[in-house]
Amino acid sequence: MLAAVVPALGAPLEIRDVPIPDPGPGQVLVRIETSGLCHTDIHAARGEWPVTPKDQLIPGHEGVGIVEAVGSGDLPVGLGQRVALPWLGHACGHCRYCVDGWETYCLSPSYMGYTMDGSYAEYAVAWASHVVPVPDGVEPIDASPLTCAGVTTYKALKVARPQPGETCMVVGIGGLGHLGLQYARIFGSRTVAVDVHADKLELASSLGADHVVDAAEAEDGALGVAGGVDVALVTVPSPAAMRAAHAALNPNGRLVLVGLPADNRLELPVFETVLKGISVIGSLVGTRSDLATVFDLHARGLTRVVTETRRLEDVNTCFEEVLAGAVPARLVFDFRS
Amino acid sequence: MLAAVVPALGAPLEIRDVPIPDPGPGQVLVRIETSGLCHTDIHAARGEWPVTPKDQLIPGHEGVGIVEAVGSGDLPVGLGQRVALPWLGHACGHCRYCVDGWETYCLSPSYMGYTMDGSYAEYAVAWASHVVPVPDGVEPIDASPLTCAGVTTYKALKVARPQPGETCMVVGIGGLGHLGLQYARIFGSRTVAVDVHADKLELASSLGADHVVDAAEAEDGALGVAGGVDVALVTVPSPAAMRAAHAALNPNGRLVLVGLPADNRLELPVFETVLKGISVIGSLVGTRSDLATVFDLHARGLTRVVTETRRLEDVNTCFEEVLAGAVPARLVFDFRS
Amino acid sequence: MLAAVVPALGAPLEIRDVPIPDPGPGQVLVRIETSGLCHTDIHAARGEWPVTPKDQLIPGHEGVGIVEAVGSGDLPVGLGQRVALPWLGHACGHCRYCVDGWETYCLSPSYMGYTMDGSYAEYAVAWASHVVPVPDGVEPIDASPLTCAGVTTYKALKVARPQPGETCMVVGIGGLGHLGLQYARIFGSRTVAVDVHADKLELASSLGADHVVDAAEAEDGALGVAGGVDVALVTVPSPAAMRAAHAALNPNGRLVLVGLPADNRLELPVFETVLKGISVIGSLVGTRSDLATVFDLHARGLTRVVTETRRLEDVNTCFEEVLAGAVPARLVFDFRS
Amino acid sequence: MLAAVVPALGAPLEIRDVPIPDPGPGQVLVRIETSGLCHTDIHAARGEWPVTPKDQLIPGHEGVGIVEAVGSGDLPVGLGQRVALPWLGHACGHCRYCVDGWETYCLSPSYMGYTMDGSYAEYAVAWASHVVPVPDGVEPIDASPLTCAGVTTYKALKVARPQPGETCMVVGIGGLGHLGLQYARIFGSRTVAVDVHADKLELASSLGADHVVDAAEAEDGALGVAGGVDVALVTVPSPAAMRAAHAALNPNGRLVLVGLPADNRLELPVFETVLKGISVIGSLVGTRSDLATVFDLHARGLTRVVTETRRLEDVNTCFEEVLAGAVPARLVFDFRS
Repeated sequence: MLAAVVPALGAPLEIRDVPIPDPGPGQVLVRIETSGLCHTDIHAARGEWPVTPKDQLIPGHEGVGIVEAVGSGDLPVGLGQRVALPWLGHACGHCRYCVDGWETYCLSPSYMGYTMDGSYAEYAVAWASHVVPVPDGVEPIDASPLTCAGVTTYKALKVARPQPGETCMVVGIGGLGHLGLQYARIFGSRTVAVDVHADKLELASSLGADHVVDAAEAEDGALGVAGGVDVALVTVPSPAAMRAAHAALNPNGRLVLVGLPADNRLELPVFETVLKGISVIGSLVGTRSDLATVFDLHARGLTRVVTETRRLEDVNTCFEEVLAGAVPARLVFDFRS
Repeated sequence: MLAAVVPALGAPLEIRDVPIPDPGPGQVLVRIETSGLCHTDIHAARGEWPVTPKDQLIPGHEGVGIVEAVGSGDLPVGLGQRVALPWLGHACGHCRYCVDGWETYCLSPSYMGYTMDGSYAEYAVAWASHVVPVPDGVEPIDASPLTCAGVTTYKALKVARPQPGETCMVVGIGGLGHLGLQYARIFGSRTVAVDVHADKLELASSLGADHVVDAAEAEDGALGVAGGVDVALVTVPSPAAMRAAHAALNPNGRLVLVGLPADNRLELPVFETVLKGISVIGSLVGTRSDLATVFDLHARGLTRVVTETRRLEDVNTCFEEVLAGAVPARLVFDFRS
Repeated sequence: MLAAVVPALGAPLEIRDVPIPDPGPGQVLVRIETSGLCHTDIHAARGEWPVTPKDQLIPGHEGVGIVEAVGSGDLPVGLGQRVALPWLGHACGHCRYCVDGWETYCLSPSYMGYTMDGSYAEYAVAWASHVVPVPDGVEPIDASPLTCAGVTTYKALKVARPQPGETCMVVGIGGLGHLGLQYARIFGSRTVAVDVHADKLELASSLGADHVVDAAEAEDGALGVAGGVDVALVTVPSPAAMRAAHAALNPNGRLVLVGLPADNRLELPVFETVLKGISVIGSLVGTRSDLATVFDLHARGLTRVVTETRRLEDVNTCFEEVLAGAVPARLVFDFRS
Repeated sequence: MLAAVVPALGAPLEIRDVPIPDPGPGQVLVRIETSGLCHTDIHAARGEWPVTPKDQLIPGHEGVGIVEAVGSGDLPVGLGQRVALPWLGHACGHCRYCVDGWETYCLSPSYMGYTMDGSYAEYAVAWASHVVPVPDGVEPIDASPLTCAGVTTYKALKVARPQPGETCMVVGIGGLGHLGLQYARIFGSRTVAVDVHADKLELASSLGADHVVDAAEAEDGALGVAGGVDVALVTVPSPAAMRAAHAALNPNGRLVLVGLPADNRLELPVFETVLKGISVIGSLVGTRSDLATVFDLHARGLTRVVTETRRLEDVNTCFEEVLAGAVPARLVFDFRS
């Protein structure tokens, strides 16, 4: 099968012909239809995070495809079923985080496209327990970005609990943010979209943002919003954006972080945090249950996914595109054509 | 009446004989029995915070005393009743924060000993609606520190919601921390006390701490606790202590901040915050209802308050004592002797 | 001024010319523009509830109008402002329920159109602290039903916390239910509307219900919904409807009650309640803050209010109409014509 | 091995010598040390519930013992480890309830001593994923009642969320209630114990109840408590007790049900439920994580378990004892002697 392999951390990916893997007990073999490109894949391929990924890694954790073979065991999915292969490839199922409904913080997790091979390939092996069925009415090309960008922003808002009477600001209207904005609306809150590109702000308006703010024109980075904001979701890995979002918060405000800045440091103003009772909340992807909800919302027609398709052979060029900030939304490798 | 007055921001307090104030409509005149010394009083007297306090300020927001006169109106407290005069001297009662149960974030608040005169005096005027009755069984000498140090740490834990199966770490076992430690126990959680002074750690043990950690001996500031901690309450205004507490947190951990470091900056590690799903929560004192609970817990015999009494005439010396970190717990001015 | 007065409990209302009342300290005089008719008004006029209303009562707690005079004090609303006069005419502001954000359970409340005169009149006196400003973009004719029917169903769902991935069933698509259905959508949940009248089900569909169920055709009263429901809001005072809704619930399901059946008895099946972990939740109107949210949602164009206008002179006929179930939605007395 | 078998629903149990079962893949064989007697076992043996138990059932879901053999697979427990075998013998691990932290409402569960053989025997087979390690410092004789009576009452209170400033009433101080009372204290709330037997009330006092109420002397069943109660946990399967507890509730009160009355009907007063905003909450046992917490609390010395030991051969007599209400607390079969 065709696969994009990381030959060494930091080296360009190589397109290789590798053997189709065999599903072990509890696993399934999935013929990949589409696979989204997430910034995390670039970090993985370049070894930019403290945890080292597996050797000869095939990246990809937004894979969607059809189950073509099953390993032994009583499995919750079957042949011919369309499933998504999310970041959380496997969780133990019995640590306190798994039992308490927080499997993304499992104490012994496996990650698709990081500690196990992912979906930058024509086929991928996944744990049957942790793939998520894609319901009718959700196209693979949409399901792929929903599998990480969607569930990450949905869950980030879910933990921040925006209320219908509150205002929710989404900073960065790219692959994550354009979905986060829509979830903020789904939770009933008034929405503010922030970006530095006019076309992103236009996209935000077309997706129903109540207000848009051009951060490039904001004086001293101040994101003034009449009435302030109660929840701010920052999808760009920029400490300056995080601080600006923090400064825009009302009392009891919640700043949710999902992006990882290069220098790993946010200078948090303690005085304002204490006097306003602000919470700064980290959130990591979402559970299988959250992803099922994300798919359900899309099947109900409540979300729109903006994508551009690419060929896997162009993966290295795609990485450059993303790093240059030159893509309109999410890039998706389409294996069906 | 005798009062300690701030003649000018930054100048030593002056002990003066000033007229007993008159309660206006909705107010009461309280003969002060005891008044605790909170670090905030020093910040107020020196004008160290962005908001400037009132001119010729009488500090003090841990006042406890007896209602001796009442202004006009249908008031919830009456003559002869013992009441506490907390930091939140008045809240509007109709902004969204007041109505939603978060009056400490009222949009037009008055603060005792900051924007209105406080309890460093033989008498003080307070709003009848915002004083809190002190129940039988709670001595004034205990009620004073409970009025700010107690309710602040109780509320900080309340918003962090420690569970009986969780571990709660309290950093700094001084005026705030020795009470916070006891509230952590009351919430049912396993407790870890952290300090750099042996006598504070001994106090923590005597108050029932399950573990104590001498931070002075911690290598590289690491506060290793077997099993990690789920909630960390940092009562010392030190960014280094906040970072160390953050590093000790388990997934889903909550770091609660109540202290204000001089340089107002906490360097937050974003990677760990996101990957562990950590929340950093600011919390400001507590409501009248929280203070009623704090008094109730004390009346039930569940807390012990460690204090030393002082004479108001020695207020400037007391400020020096506190700044030098030389006091065993809370200092309380006692007007009864 | 013209007013509808209850001469004696159970007697028909009388249209009288009575003096315009004077606002006392902290009160305002409001020239009523519209006033909705709530079933509670009928219970009040007939003395059907355990608590006896005031003598010579003027009913009405969905009044909307313009402040024309103000009593003494520093009031949060001013002359010329449009305000709503909700059920909770006054709350003490200092009991634990008021301070904790649950003012509707205040220990010493006043109720508009029940313990104090209401808005079935050209003018009404209300407490300035407890009227709620009606924002631009919300017409009085819409604001009136929102003031009780709206906030009651909004709050009922708020306490039940429907999630975007859940299904919410609203039983009874009348004055309350047609609004409750829209709030269920605003919270992001999939919606099921239940009624016995075809026109109500058509209304539900036009308001965006995902499914409609004709309870008249339900076998044995069973409201089978594929996938079950997670939240059920019962707006009709029928124990049979409550039991049917209970039976349709999934595990962790929440049944919210806002209506009061004549015989005050719901036979709750304990076995199913325990084995499915079901919660049965009573909810009473909403706070000033909830009502502000309800108005905000309407100003944002997210709700549609179905009303028919009436003349106050026809109040007794209107009561008959409501009791006969012959009204399409909410009746509103319009004083402007 | 020795086992107590239900030969036919409703017939007395028979003590038989049956083969030691073999653990399958993912399972373990546990040599039982102790096994508590829960009222549910009697319901199971008599087929009194809608769901029919397995044929030739060996009851028991409070088994504690040592792992003596393991089936195939990568199991979370190992040979020689002491484990508890709770009611939830197995849950699927992938339905929405399992993933969301509510495994006790799993859509395809197995129940120990109901749909699979339990611990009324010298050996039992259990799923390795769903047994819970018993920590050092917890004796088997204590661990058994904690495994159902303990975790059931702990979880019931956890979902009702008693706060330190609230009052919690526990009705029935038997096997469940004497533990529930202690958990109410651990959550920090003021406690009220209700029973009709003087010795149970004495036990409650010795366990630290703040108040005791003799329901036999309560006029008209009224359980008057000064200040009312905020949470009521009813452990006796009596609708009259449930109604009395409901009537004692404050606004925002929560009535938690864990017992199943014979006629399955609670007449709920709707008026009081709505006007006071009361919640009636059903709760079923607890998760593996909850049980780990229950064991941890006991290891920390915070709970005391009152038991009497019996020989399995006397199981039928024990059933009679329990039905007659003649046992002081929990009966436990001890296999070690």
